Amino acid sequence: MGFSPSISNSITVRLELPARATAVGELSSAVEKEGGMVTAVDIAESGAERLRTDITIATWGEAHATQIVEAMRKVPGVEIGKVSDRTFLMHLGGKLSVESKQPIRNRDDLSMIYTPGVARVCQAIVDNPEDARRLTIKRNTVAVVTDGTAVLGMGDIGPLAALPVMEGKAALFKRFADVDAFPIVLDTKDADEIVRIVKAIAPGFAGINLEDISAPRCFYIERRLREELDIPVFHDDQHGTAIVVLAALRNALRVVDKELPDVKIVLSGAGAAGSAILRLLLMAGATDVIVSDVHGVLHSERADIARGDNANMAWIASQTNKGGLRGLLTEALVGADVFIGVSAGGILTGDDIATMGPDAIVFAMANPTPEVDPADAAEHATVVATGRSDFANQINNVLVFPGVFRGLMDAQSDHITDEMLLAAAIALSDVVGADERNPTYIIPSVFNPKVSKAVAQAVEKVARERVDATS
Amino acid sequence: MGFSPSISNSITVRLELPARATAVGELSSAVEKEGGMVTAVDIAESGAERLRTDITIATWGEAHATQIVEAMRKVPGVEIGKVSDRTFLMHLGGKLSVESKQPIRNRDDLSMIYTPGVARVCQAIVDNPEDARRLTIKRNTVAVVTDGTAVLGMGDIGPLAALPVMEGKAALFKRFADVDAFPIVLDTKDADEIVRIVKAIAPGFAGINLEDISAPRCFYIERRLREELDIPVFHDDQHGTAIVVLAALRNALRVVDKELPDVKIVLSGAGAAGSAILRLLLMAGATDVIVSDVHGVLHSERADIARGDNANMAWIASQTNKGGLRGLLTEALVGADVFIGVSAGGILTGDDIATMGPDAIVFAMANPTPEVDPADAAEHATVVATGRSDFANQINNVLVFPGVFRGLMDAQSDHITDEMLLAAAIALSDVVGADERNPTYIIPSVFNPKVSKAVAQAVEKVARERVDATS
Repeated sequence: MGFSPSISNSITVRLELPARATAVGELSSAVEKEGGMVTAVDIAESGAERLRTDITIATWGEAHATQIVEAMRKVPGVEIGKVSDRTFLMHLGGKLSVESKQPIRNRDDLSMIYTPGVARVCQAIVDNPEDARRLTIKRNTVAVVTDGTAVLGMGDIGPLAALPVMEGKAALFKRFADVDAFPIVLDTKDADEIVRIVKAIAPGFAGINLEDISAPRCFYIERRLREELDIPVFHDDQHGTAIVVLAALRNALRVVDKELPDVKIVLSGAGAAGSAILRLLLMAGATDVIVSDVHGVLHSERADIARGDNANMAWIASQTNKGGLRGLLTEALVGADVFIGVSAGGILTGDDIATMGPDAIVFAMANPTPEVDPADAAEHATVVATGRSDFANQINNVLVFPGVFRGLMDAQSDHITDEMLLAAAIALSDVVGADERNPTYIIPSVFNPKVSKAVAQAVEKVARERVDATS
Repeated sequence: MGFSPSISNSITVRLELPARATAVGELSSAVEKEGGMVTAVDIAESGAERLRTDITIATWGEAHATQIVEAMRKVPGVEIGKVSDRTFLMHLGGKLSVESKQPIRNRDDLSMIYTPGVARVCQAIVDNPEDARRLTIKRNTVAVVTDGTAVLGMGDIGPLAALPVMEGKAALFKRFADVDAFPIVLDTKDADEIVRIVKAIAPGFAGINLEDISAPRCFYIERRLREELDIPVFHDDQHGTAIVVLAALRNALRVVDKELPDVKIVLSGAGAAGSAILRLLLMAGATDVIVSDVHGVLHSERADIARGDNANMAWIASQTNKGGLRGLLTEALVGADVFIGVSAGGILTGDDIATMGPDAIVFAMANPTPEVDPADAAEHATVVATGRSDFANQINNVLVFPGVFRGLMDAQSDHITDEMLLAAAIALSDVVGADERNPTYIIPSVFNPKVSKAVAQAVEKVARERVDATS
């Protein structure tokens, strides 16, 4: 594949080198010869004969980093010191802090923030529980809840090892939408127990973001929590992914001048993400979708589905594959307008993409390795997108979840609806103007400041209409 | 009682008044005549004929504040505008924020803090779970857990209304010991359910601070969590109170030149705080303690205790009242050296204190109203302390819990022991130097920067000895 060494595998090497004009050049050459990429050189200390220098290098991974350091060691006169992993440095001590918004300088401050003054604030909430949304962190705080059973591409790594991801998520909530989010990692896989726990901790939060919980348990947990809680529950792996996919697809279809109701869509993956994408696509007007999983195309008579032990698969089969196709993903792909992959890396080749219809759209979102090499896909498809940051058209949930919760909390919504998800997708796609839209720009950057505001406003608007209609 | 109007009941009144020399004086007089206290005057805007002014006034409470504002309205030429409650202003929107410790400026940052880089950090924790204490918020984060059943003097107000207290507690953790603390308020009163929930959420935390959970449920919950969790569990209402009481008592005894093993101590209150105080007093060497509750002095044959339905009361009876006294608190008090109250306001008079032995020590810690008016008590006792900030010798848990958890986390301790509690009490009392100690200074100020460090170091030292001994 045509990827570069990754910044996320960067090392910083502290070294001493002779103060000769070519020394840094020799080192850089040594790094590049091994396939590394020098991204920063900082002279930490300069003497008459020796320079102490920090060199930061993007690598392919730990083994590659070791190999590069060994090559650097062979440059004449160089002495290698401490080698640090930049990613690990950023995680040291955890990535979140809990801060007091009020200074506590003296007894007077103490008497208002804590006893005895706080008792009056408690009493106000006893008298009017709705005041908690005004006078406590319930105003702006989301729980990021996981049991660690489906973390990134790593699967069931448990709650402790999932914590770095949940902290990162909370950091993104703050960065992109000023949402206070706190990770709750659960040492249980029992779906009913998870429901009970989330219900019990819910009073302190304005919303619940479920994260990396494996299917089909995630469907049951989400459904029960939505029914039984008075705050919105959002499973990012499902709904965040669905929103960003629909947003990207709307713009991709505009680029190739096709309409959603007319196109044939092949969706690879029938888990949490795939099911939610399907649901939102249908709601947005898609009519012709074929879903495939590791056993091939889904249809009602497929043995595992006919047995009826997975309600979600049965629902998918009932909503898709109107032509009753049986067989493999590659067979479904022939003549299709759109491929959406949320499954596994490297399951398709450029030749498979070549069998699709004209002006094909390919979203290959498996992480870290896409379903098809995007460079190969681009030879046969008009629009190609992945989940990776080092390729055009990154389809990234970070575009969605911060704004969705911002909007929900601004409306003080007690629920989330499919209409809100649809509104979020439309708003996100419309951040890309008609003059900006092209095959390599169907979705805005996560750093585009308009994104979370647009998503938030769209969600808030629907939420407020709903409140107005019921009050 | 001799208390002043409270800063925690402050209002800020925005008003316009004529630009005459005496106007502010007239207003201040009006406030003072009603018993209020002007604590700040800010001219917000000055014109030729009118001044727009913010006047902040300490009051006795909401009714009193209304009365003061009405008196101010009668000053000629004054127009009253918005009246704000300063305490409520400080709670608006909640008192905590969750911040990212790392800036997220670009895709490179994103690739290290979140995907794909974060996956390597997760993998490191899968390979070595202990790394979570290095690479995640588990390093420095405490859960402040309550079910809202015993909040301040308010009793069972539920989880939502308890949230302002838990937020305040978390803010104090940060302010005094740089501990990240997050409130978990639980919508259940079932003790087994609370145990299950705290166990399930524990992976993300380095310690559990139980708070405002009613007795005797709190004993059961704490005992089970201590047995079943691999992080320290501390019930502040019990152990925080016990530590600060013992610290203050050590210094009070030094002031009156008595020794703990020799004194007769009467303890009013047999709940969470009273039981923990008793346990720590005994451990520190006390030999003669009598405990009293709302039904009078505890002894093994008292009907409710003899029935045996409260194991905690039976334990107290077995450890105290060696002389087999029966009767009322006031009878126990005769000739006592020390009174410690963690019970209810106004149950004793100065005359009761007068029956105590020479150089009596009185800790009247019921909140907001002490067991005996401290001014009345001071007429007959040598050392008087309360839980209030507006009287000398404030016995305040804030002196304890931040440092205790700082020490536990610095030692990466997986347990907390009675030896640590005792060490914390000794360290806290020793912050007051021999030359500083006197009847009105037996305990340092919470703003004394030595406090949390001394407590932390003492706890850490014991924790490390323990680790060394077992490894």
